[in-house]
Amino acid sequence: MPTEAQVREALSRVMDPELGRNIVELGMVRAITIDGPRVAVTLALTTMGCPLKDRISGDARAAVEALEPGLQVNVVLGEMTAEERQRAFGRQAPEVTAAQQASNVRRVLAVMSGKGGVGKSSVSALLAVALRRKGLNVGLLDADITGPSIPRMFGLHEPPEMGPAGMMPVESRSGIKVISINLLLPTEEEAVVWRGPLISSAIKQFWSEVVWGDLDVLILDLPPGTSDPALTVMQSIPLNGVLMVTSPQDLAGMVVRKAAQLASQLKVPIVGLVENMSYVLCPDCARKVEAFGPSQAGRTAAHLGVPLLGSLPLDPELARMADVGDIERYAAEAFRPLADEVWARIPAAKCTPMFG
Amino acid sequence: MPTEAQVREALSRVMDPELGRNIVELGMVRAITIDGPRVAVTLALTTMGCPLKDRISGDARAAVEALEPGLQVNVVLGEMTAEERQRAFGRQAPEVTAAQQASNVRRVLAVMSGKGGVGKSSVSALLAVALRRKGLNVGLLDADITGPSIPRMFGLHEPPEMGPAGMMPVESRSGIKVISINLLLPTEEEAVVWRGPLISSAIKQFWSEVVWGDLDVLILDLPPGTSDPALTVMQSIPLNGVLMVTSPQDLAGMVVRKAAQLASQLKVPIVGLVENMSYVLCPDCARKVEAFGPSQAGRTAAHLGVPLLGSLPLDPELARMADVGDIERYAAEAFRPLADEVWARIPAAKCTPMFG
Repeated sequence: MPTEAQVREALSRVMDPELGRNIVELGMVRAITIDGPRVAVTLALTTMGCPLKDRISGDARAAVEALEPGLQVNVVLGEMTAEERQRAFGRQAPEVTAAQQASNVRRVLAVMSGKGGVGKSSVSALLAVALRRKGLNVGLLDADITGPSIPRMFGLHEPPEMGPAGMMPVESRSGIKVISINLLLPTEEEAVVWRGPLISSAIKQFWSEVVWGDLDVLILDLPPGTSDPALTVMQSIPLNGVLMVTSPQDLAGMVVRKAAQLASQLKVPIVGLVENMSYVLCPDCARKVEAFGPSQAGRTAAHLGVPLLGSLPLDPELARMADVGDIERYAAEAFRPLADEVWARIPAAKCTPMFG
Repeated sequence: MPTEAQVREALSRVMDPELGRNIVELGMVRAITIDGPRVAVTLALTTMGCPLKDRISGDARAAVEALEPGLQVNVVLGEMTAEERQRAFGRQAPEVTAAQQASNVRRVLAVMSGKGGVGKSSVSALLAVALRRKGLNVGLLDADITGPSIPRMFGLHEPPEMGPAGMMPVESRSGIKVISINLLLPTEEEAVVWRGPLISSAIKQFWSEVVWGDLDVLILDLPPGTSDPALTVMQSIPLNGVLMVTSPQDLAGMVVRKAAQLASQLKVPIVGLVENMSYVLCPDCARKVEAFGPSQAGRTAAHLGVPLLGSLPLDPELARMADVGDIERYAAEAFRPLADEVWARIPAAKCTPMFG
């Protein structure tokens, strides 16, 4: 029979693939009991929503089973307490920065898709404009570090000023507070060639080192994918919810469903789904041309169990005004009911981030 | 005056932000000469195309200047020799895998944009189909790990088989050899929630552990962005060139110009630019409706100094056939001249990857 020390040693070869440290070092091994050939291991995950929990428990079982033939290994999963998490990550509850002390952000909504080019940035921007027109205090955090489009849409080019408490967002003509990496680059065409950790750290700083002040809502425009940027936003920023954006193709829907799976694993509520690029009006005969084929968004919404909040057309005029920085002058009447609907559905409670 | 040891100690606090190790440990400090208050430091970069070279040399200068007031610090940049690189990364020239020994891939072309949703996957797939119709042996590597669309477009669902030398690509109906993460997932909607290092390692394995066999051309479908996937492809795989894809909006062009900057920093030749989604035909009156506004692609091509190889319409029929896995039956006659043009322009020489 193996000893507890041998089991622990075997478990120290199991990595948390996301955190890149072994599960013993991370304090995830809560208990080991050995009863003849039966070995029970209790692991405390950072969160039960941990997307890699099956892999970690499978690896742990295999590592212990390899100790000797005939062992019956049972892995039980639990969730870390706040204290265990604190011990694992070697620090106190996240420090409140001066910028955060000077801010009061009542709601945080991430606009997400998984899929690229479905219009996350347009939806984020139009939502910000519509909520601002209602008289709300609105912030817009461009979390797309390698493909930022928000400053161009609002015609913003000047760099943010540094205040005593942190970086001051740049205000758009209608008073929307904007932060984007493109405001910090020498030219807007400068490439940001960073691997994941730097991308994540930029996004975290946009949240914690920017003096957002008093905001009714902060909208986060996420890049495509379910890798570092999406993980960082969902794991480090206290979101009230996410708004999903799709396009009519089922191929887009497939990728959106992947992103929705991430949100639900991390227990972030999905406010609803918006379909963008549903059709374009023919300027000659006013026919609605379904450029991406007939809509599959209803199917995607039903599959996700969330409401389809609206379908937006492709509008060359929107493309033009976004290109020249005039999105705030776009007559987005069609967008107002959708913005009202989104606003009414943002949950009041914030999710607790896993890592400060 | 500082001693050489002090200068070296100061330099050991300068990190290569991309590699996450300090420049002394990486063996980048080739020479230090101290002549009164004048200190000259010679740094050997992994490549002169290193996108962070200004930052590294600036950090190095600042670190030495901080040693004492009045120092005149001069940083000279050079490029590592093969031996220095080998020492820095602690290993021999990259091992040739059994899969690579069993393969002969004559040309490798990455399809890239920086921007999401402009149709990189459609262009990659249509290009593969057109080159296959010419009788060439074609492979298609889906490097989009979090938003893979290639298997769906070709109607491929079965997992790849393992052969003695490595993983066997799945063959499409017309004989295109395909690898994608979606072929390896339990369902195509499963989210891949990985940070950068895992994404990079998957892409590298798709290159080095897959038995591609005898190929005239391997096409890589890249995800959006200039972060881990693009960097890994350009730094680890011997590309012959990249094909850039854009959409008519100048906002898309801006992000494409960022991606092109990355390619040129890493000295990977750009074969040309393709504009996608240029217009959609109204089925009633046959008007060409410019859904994303008038084309800015000519401007983008001129700015990049590369040819605009063609403009493709939005076609609901293509969207439909891609959704149901029938892209090989799409009557892509309009695509043939473009595919011929791309094929003729792929440079014969491969770029040398920085890291195996």
